[in-house]
Amino acid sequence: MTPRADGRADDELRPIKITRNWLDHPAGSVLIEFGGTRVLCAASASTGVPRWRKGSGLGWVTAEYAMLPASTNTRSDRESVKGRIGGRTHEISRLIGRSLRAVIDYQALGENTIQLDCDVLQADGGTRTAAITGAYIALADACAHLGVSNALTGSVAAVSVGIIDGVPRLDLPYVEDVRAETDMNVVMTGEGAFVEVQGTAEGAPFVRSELDGLLDLAAKGCADLTRMQREALAGA
Amino acid sequence: MTPRADGRADDELRPIKITRNWLDHPAGSVLIEFGGTRVLCAASASTGVPRWRKGSGLGWVTAEYAMLPASTNTRSDRESVKGRIGGRTHEISRLIGRSLRAVIDYQALGENTIQLDCDVLQADGGTRTAAITGAYIALADACAHLGVSNALTGSVAAVSVGIIDGVPRLDLPYVEDVRAETDMNVVMTGEGAFVEVQGTAEGAPFVRSELDGLLDLAAKGCADLTRMQREALAGA
Amino acid sequence: MTPRADGRADDELRPIKITRNWLDHPAGSVLIEFGGTRVLCAASASTGVPRWRKGSGLGWVTAEYAMLPASTNTRSDRESVKGRIGGRTHEISRLIGRSLRAVIDYQALGENTIQLDCDVLQADGGTRTAAITGAYIALADACAHLGVSNALTGSVAAVSVGIIDGVPRLDLPYVEDVRAETDMNVVMTGEGAFVEVQGTAEGAPFVRSELDGLLDLAAKGCADLTRMQREALAGA
Amino acid sequence: MTPRADGRADDELRPIKITRNWLDHPAGSVLIEFGGTRVLCAASASTGVPRWRKGSGLGWVTAEYAMLPASTNTRSDRESVKGRIGGRTHEISRLIGRSLRAVIDYQALGENTIQLDCDVLQADGGTRTAAITGAYIALADACAHLGVSNALTGSVAAVSVGIIDGVPRLDLPYVEDVRAETDMNVVMTGEGAFVEVQGTAEGAPFVRSELDGLLDLAAKGCADLTRMQREALAGA
Amino acid sequence: MTPRADGRADDELRPIKITRNWLDHPAGSVLIEFGGTRVLCAASASTGVPRWRKGSGLGWVTAEYAMLPASTNTRSDRESVKGRIGGRTHEISRLIGRSLRAVIDYQALGENTIQLDCDVLQADGGTRTAAITGAYIALADACAHLGVSNALTGSVAAVSVGIIDGVPRLDLPYVEDVRAETDMNVVMTGEGAFVEVQGTAEGAPFVRSELDGLLDLAAKGCADLTRMQREALAGA
Amino acid sequence: MTPRADGRADDELRPIKITRNWLDHPAGSVLIEFGGTRVLCAASASTGVPRWRKGSGLGWVTAEYAMLPASTNTRSDRESVKGRIGGRTHEISRLIGRSLRAVIDYQALGENTIQLDCDVLQADGGTRTAAITGAYIALADACAHLGVSNALTGSVAAVSVGIIDGVPRLDLPYVEDVRAETDMNVVMTGEGAFVEVQGTAEGAPFVRSELDGLLDLAAKGCADLTRMQREALAGA
Repeated sequence: MTPRADGRADDELRPIKITRNWLDHPAGSVLIEFGGTRVLCAASASTGVPRWRKGSGLGWVTAEYAMLPASTNTRSDRESVKGRIGGRTHEISRLIGRSLRAVIDYQALGENTIQLDCDVLQADGGTRTAAITGAYIALADACAHLGVSNALTGSVAAVSVGIIDGVPRLDLPYVEDVRAETDMNVVMTGEGAFVEVQGTAEGAPFVRSELDGLLDLAAKGCADLTRMQREALAGA
Repeated sequence: MTPRADGRADDELRPIKITRNWLDHPAGSVLIEFGGTRVLCAASASTGVPRWRKGSGLGWVTAEYAMLPASTNTRSDRESVKGRIGGRTHEISRLIGRSLRAVIDYQALGENTIQLDCDVLQADGGTRTAAITGAYIALADACAHLGVSNALTGSVAAVSVGIIDGVPRLDLPYVEDVRAETDMNVVMTGEGAFVEVQGTAEGAPFVRSELDGLLDLAAKGCADLTRMQREALAGA
Repeated sequence: MTPRADGRADDELRPIKITRNWLDHPAGSVLIEFGGTRVLCAASASTGVPRWRKGSGLGWVTAEYAMLPASTNTRSDRESVKGRIGGRTHEISRLIGRSLRAVIDYQALGENTIQLDCDVLQADGGTRTAAITGAYIALADACAHLGVSNALTGSVAAVSVGIIDGVPRLDLPYVEDVRAETDMNVVMTGEGAFVEVQGTAEGAPFVRSELDGLLDLAAKGCADLTRMQREALAGA
Repeated sequence: MTPRADGRADDELRPIKITRNWLDHPAGSVLIEFGGTRVLCAASASTGVPRWRKGSGLGWVTAEYAMLPASTNTRSDRESVKGRIGGRTHEISRLIGRSLRAVIDYQALGENTIQLDCDVLQADGGTRTAAITGAYIALADACAHLGVSNALTGSVAAVSVGIIDGVPRLDLPYVEDVRAETDMNVVMTGEGAFVEVQGTAEGAPFVRSELDGLLDLAAKGCADLTRMQREALAGA
Repeated sequence: MTPRADGRADDELRPIKITRNWLDHPAGSVLIEFGGTRVLCAASASTGVPRWRKGSGLGWVTAEYAMLPASTNTRSDRESVKGRIGGRTHEISRLIGRSLRAVIDYQALGENTIQLDCDVLQADGGTRTAAITGAYIALADACAHLGVSNALTGSVAAVSVGIIDGVPRLDLPYVEDVRAETDMNVVMTGEGAFVEVQGTAEGAPFVRSELDGLLDLAAKGCADLTRMQREALAGA
Repeated sequence: MTPRADGRADDELRPIKITRNWLDHPAGSVLIEFGGTRVLCAASASTGVPRWRKGSGLGWVTAEYAMLPASTNTRSDRESVKGRIGGRTHEISRLIGRSLRAVIDYQALGENTIQLDCDVLQADGGTRTAAITGAYIALADACAHLGVSNALTGSVAAVSVGIIDGVPRLDLPYVEDVRAETDMNVVMTGEGAFVEVQGTAEGAPFVRSELDGLLDLAAKGCADLTRMQREALAGA
């Protein structure tokens, strides 16, 4: 069993850096870094809700995820130029939206909309989990900005786990991600309950005991991230 | 605890009906029914592979999922008319493709492409799991048609599970799906290993013991479906 | 003069099969088969009309036609994936809509919309004429469902005719269609009047006497189809 | 029976004006006017054929039709701005292409492509028939330019006919077109054979005798247009 | 220093031809010719303004520019068929709109919209400057038609200038345009003030004295065009 | 005459901050800040050129500009989601590409492509000029990375100037930009020659003396930026 290229323990997160209020305009914004992965999360608040929700007294939270062309190892084509959003982008945008809505009390939010934008400035694995973890902080700041901090019923954080050479590992960078036999993204609340579990056999199918090991590791990682989120929000 | 509307036991599948060779043209085709859900799965085989794979000696399998406009309770707009594919469609197409590729030996397939089309004729919950379960049979027929049955390294089946009023249930129809607190789709091999696990908290986040219960139920359902797939393929 | 490959007389329809209420959700639905051609026709009724017609007291009927990718001899690309509808699809959708609107009394329909969806599950020539013939039955069921059967001022049926090796023939399957010198689609009312006549010289231009022969043949075919429509609608 | 607003006899064409070589760049070009309808037809010749026809030794002819936004009574939105071509545009482009290909000998054309562009500068009814009639002349000039005049096996012209207040009339301007119970476009060769017949009941369905009357009128109009085409091509 | 291919002096415009009311439907229309460049400019007036301007009491003027496929030396693909508008088209449409809005008093226009359409029928350099110069006349006619001629606060005209072989020249045709080291489009009011100055170094960067020379030349050309616009508008 | 809100002299730039190598993957990258405007410029190098340039021995440089949704005062819709690129984006992308190509020797670059991506992370006026100024540095680093620093024939920098309340001012932030009567963007080489001059009368047309004043101011600003570019490139 070879050690990890960056010297981390198997259950150790990469260095996490959270910079709040990186932008001047949106109600909340965070530049979040999971090692080399850098995601800019913005939460723009606006009065009113989409047409299908008008008059309900309930708010709305939605999310869009995208990668800058030069964020990846080899430049990716710009989706605006291609004129269509790819399946992966669609899928991750939906995942982020669902994850954050899991801790929103629409009634308390009132007829306001919070639009989350998670733009990957640099990608080194785990961009969707960094996005969810950062978006939560931007969302919390936006709720505070709107004076509806009670609209948050809890916190969410997310982390990737995977099996590399038979060993379960936490928070995979790109070099591990491409080699993983199984790849799983887990979104959890600050209380340790599951919001999303998405596991995929990239190589051989995985058995129940492997799945159990990955879930344990994810719970550990999400708990660590939850603590860092609290510290970041406790700052100025 | 109320019984299920259709009188089933909590760990019981809906009536499953598999009609092979429903179409004349493609190499494999199946009309699969999970209760009121009716999905037409076709496997079209063609010589050659996409450009990025040429000369590798390896084959390719890909999938597209779609719903007919009148398949749903209330008519849905046609994606070809809207000029773009929605996020849900993208996501399910990708899931089906990944699931089937998990049991493909590209080397044995040779430089051939099998295109799976899963079109929902009628939707009553569980369309993606019916699609995967049916697509496997169409794929098996297409491999046989190409004379490369050894390109299949196993079988896959999929089922939905969910928690309704605190009770884990197997194979949710639409009326249960909309009420589920947690909704999970599980894809497993015929040997009982996991290919995909996708769980989502629709209402309250779910705890580990609930997750464990759902996984047990899914394993039971996939084993039942695997048996039915074998019987269908053993037919003429 | 060679006989037809399927042994039919030149003025004989293929075996026609009409299955009403093939779907649970829409107000009317029919699976119609003209030999190997299989079209699923659904009529979805909804209250209200498009914006440009609001307040007029008049209803609206519109149609969309599409082919499943695996319905054709060689798989066709999905128009939703291409992001645009092809000219042929557009043309046939418009033809179906015009044909059915020819027997609708908008006043009697009231401010309701009936959306016809004709999806070709399997194509073997004559898909547009099967679609029109089937759509009429779905439309009749939808009008009955809305309690406005008097909105139908008559019935419509359609059939293809063509000249193969100099001989006019009724209801061409694919193998005849590709060889036809002249190809004509005719839509007629149950009373034997014309709603649409579309004739195209595929090979050599055709003279008036040939056109006259084709129109006679079409009138015979439409009369036969009208009778079958009546029988189908007289069933449960 | 009221006379026609412009004083014409029922079987009389509007004033037809044909200006050859209206453009400097394409191999053939014509500004054709049917009364107030003004269509600019260009035939651009290029070496080579589409990919699917390469190496066949056969040429290709294709057509695109469009209307300028300000050509219509009320300004129409630009299809390039809408990002999609409408069904009517698609349908007419296909009709023009088919009609002109009916008189082309692909072998004699050799592996060359002629692209016909028919742009409506001003619309007053009958734009598609003016387009076909003018496109033939541009096509003839383009064939001459390529030195393959023998690629033309005949000529084509087109005219609209319709029934207004029970009376069959030739070459309908907009004011008659909107009032027509039946509307028919007929494309014929210079020898008087049919290339396309497209008749539509706009109001009440039409009977065989009415159809016969319209076809007679169309034959008269196409013969007149054929003579004018010959005269125009006989000019410098 | 070689003379110009068409024998013009360096500060001389090509023959300019302005035909007012070339179209029957729009409130104003002009066919304007700068030598071989031919642009059809239409100004369609309609009551009401875009949503974002409603209730302001202010009018709106907007413009769209496009080229017919056969207008260029080699046929260009149709943007409606490509499904997207190219950058050059976008840029010129915006330039025309801005230029004309510079002489509009929105208050005097009232809540009316004038849509300018500039369609290039034949391109031989300077299409955007011909479009602006012609659009002004169509706009003036449309304002008169609306009875709000006072909404025009002045006139605008535009011309291209460039440096060819070191010599500044006015109103470049295509053969000069492609050889120009520097290319500049200048829009000026009838009073000689600047509305737009757009200069681009196509070859070597240009120095201030060259820029000054080009601006002088443009002022001369715009003054000439202003005079011709006045004459055209003074006609019937 | 009121002083500037941020206390600057009229001919003074905002604080400029240049951070080289902000990204790990592309050959060159710069985060450039003009006051609150923050643009991430990346230069991705790849072997080979677009199809139309193959075999010419010449390289290619192209650029894309975009704004993140939350970069603006009020959130802007994402162009990838809208499915089309707006006119302003198109226009600025083209401007950046032209500006940088003005200092490229394609022969020395060889058959390599450098793709510039300028993504606005935060917008406070002058995003296009910051993009050009930053892109030059990324381009220089990419050329060095490719070992073809001689492909750069000079440097380019860009700045905005405008007339506010009758006073010409350098480098406008958003609050000045919206109030400017005239707005001009000027791109100059390090030697002080012009690459692009784009001036627009936002309010009243401007006279020659005003234009002259703006050009003087722009020359001063570009000279300052050129010095900062040199310093940045002289760093590690």
